[in-house]
Amino acid sequence: MRILVDAMGGDNAPLAIVKGALLAAKETDSSIALIGPKERLCELLAQESPEGVPENILTVGAPDVITNDESPVKAIKTKPNSTIVQGLTILKDGFADAFVSAGSTGALLVGGLLICGRIKGIERPAICSLYPVVGSKPAVLVDAGANAECKPRNIYEFALMGSVYMEKVLGRENPRVGLANIGVEAEKGTALTKKAYELLSESDLNFVGNVEARDIPEGACDVIVADGFTGNIILKLSEGMVGRLAKVMAAKLPPEMMAAIKSQTDYSEFGGAPILGVEKPIIKMHGSSGPKAVKNAILKAVDFAATDVIGKVKEQIR
Amino acid sequence: MRILVDAMGGDNAPLAIVKGALLAAKETDSSIALIGPKERLCELLAQESPEGVPENILTVGAPDVITNDESPVKAIKTKPNSTIVQGLTILKDGFADAFVSAGSTGALLVGGLLICGRIKGIERPAICSLYPVVGSKPAVLVDAGANAECKPRNIYEFALMGSVYMEKVLGRENPRVGLANIGVEAEKGTALTKKAYELLSESDLNFVGNVEARDIPEGACDVIVADGFTGNIILKLSEGMVGRLAKVMAAKLPPEMMAAIKSQTDYSEFGGAPILGVEKPIIKMHGSSGPKAVKNAILKAVDFAATDVIGKVKEQIR
Repeated sequence: MRILVDAMGGDNAPLAIVKGALLAAKETDSSIALIGPKERLCELLAQESPEGVPENILTVGAPDVITNDESPVKAIKTKPNSTIVQGLTILKDGFADAFVSAGSTGALLVGGLLICGRIKGIERPAICSLYPVVGSKPAVLVDAGANAECKPRNIYEFALMGSVYMEKVLGRENPRVGLANIGVEAEKGTALTKKAYELLSESDLNFVGNVEARDIPEGACDVIVADGFTGNIILKLSEGMVGRLAKVMAAKLPPEMMAAIKSQTDYSEFGGAPILGVEKPIIKMHGSSGPKAVKNAILKAVDFAATDVIGKVKEQIR
Repeated sequence: MRILVDAMGGDNAPLAIVKGALLAAKETDSSIALIGPKERLCELLAQESPEGVPENILTVGAPDVITNDESPVKAIKTKPNSTIVQGLTILKDGFADAFVSAGSTGALLVGGLLICGRIKGIERPAICSLYPVVGSKPAVLVDAGANAECKPRNIYEFALMGSVYMEKVLGRENPRVGLANIGVEAEKGTALTKKAYELLSESDLNFVGNVEARDIPEGACDVIVADGFTGNIILKLSEGMVGRLAKVMAAKLPPEMMAAIKSQTDYSEFGGAPILGVEKPIIKMHGSSGPKAVKNAILKAVDFAATDVIGKVKEQIR
């Protein structure tokens, strides 16, 4: 596999990205290409690996960067030499098998659609985030924030894509799909959730029904589906609750327990969220990703590409 | 004040309600009237207070009960002798100053509207729940689940009512109002949140802008406003996260710390949620309320009625 990594995306770029790529290079045979200002990247690589740059690390030149402040559509159209536009073009042309970036989510979504294209039959791409379940295996949450407003059909597509990802990449067979809602009964919620419930019930997915927010932290299902507004609220509130409780209890908790909880709920550990619904594998990392998160995202990208999630989604959507 | 209490609502009725009323009677001079099957209530009162029933405890006869399984509209229309219909009628006629019930939320909302009437200028009543902030003072969350789908104007009304309640009943002056959203910028979120943001910005409320879910557990604002779907997700997910973390950590935490966290996040301690927007003070208790929760709800009802929240809402809406 050839994984292309945006060396200039995120708060800690390019150093954290370079460090993460070097860590990943030790754990995979795949080649890792860093895209960004070539000279600077070569300098950093030399500096960070004085014993010699590993053979499976490459660099690709791209002088420009898209920032979080820019309008995604405008940036994609006017910055052909940015790491994201160049990276996605290389991905589209088949010279790389996956693209990993901690840059602008909007630009990755728009660029993914405009450059790589949408999977036929999938109306809206979504962000599929790992959802930490304390004391158990993580779930995935789709959509974690790409589409604030959705139609019922979109929710069904999120469920399908999330199921394939969970099964193929995380290896959990026949994953239980739950619709985030304010009650378990089919008629609870909004017009959107009621209709989505219907579509999910009629589908071949392992739909376990509505899941109340209270039961989400208990690991009530493997794939949590929601519109992007609700999904984002669920993800960030969970993160905030853990952070708050950790802060209040830190002084009195045994340090090893604190560490265990943090590692189980630390988003940086999980290595990025795939953007599902685009023709090529794209992984979005947290803007704040450090070297370890970058390493994990690269390794996740290898799995994403190797397991042919996209092919399986296409098969199912037919 | 005369507080009317539905003796037959909730999972633990009537015993927990009777016990709670007896506890409350010791802490307030207000009279507490229990409504339900009169004979049974008198027996229970005699049994639970062998030293004699306190003078400020009364009973009011109502033979019928509305259950959670019934359609609220139908139940209100066809069960004139139920505790809820009788209780709300007594409230409306001015023979009581507040009504407290752990019964069907739907029936309380519909009954409140049909029997007591809506505050003129308020389109949709809402549930105003206390939102525990670990290690700090609680916020209030409106709407906690009465209106799954809302218009921007409703959100503004929730904010207004929540602010008055926070100021009058909880004594926090000029409370900070935050709109639950997926980003802090005005243009983030859905068509609903964007328009609600505008209305809130133009209002006289102390609107501090959008509040991201991550910051809600930190006590980022005093009044969290959201549509009832999002509000319910926020409330129940927070509850679920605390429960999950407590479960996983219980074995290793110092018991006094566990107890402190539980008491700070235990919804039963908080004593019910006011239904705001109705012409009379109604407090909805958790269905699972035990004696302590019932006591707290009754005391909260005294404050709700005594501080004239409804009068203040009317003044502000003009």
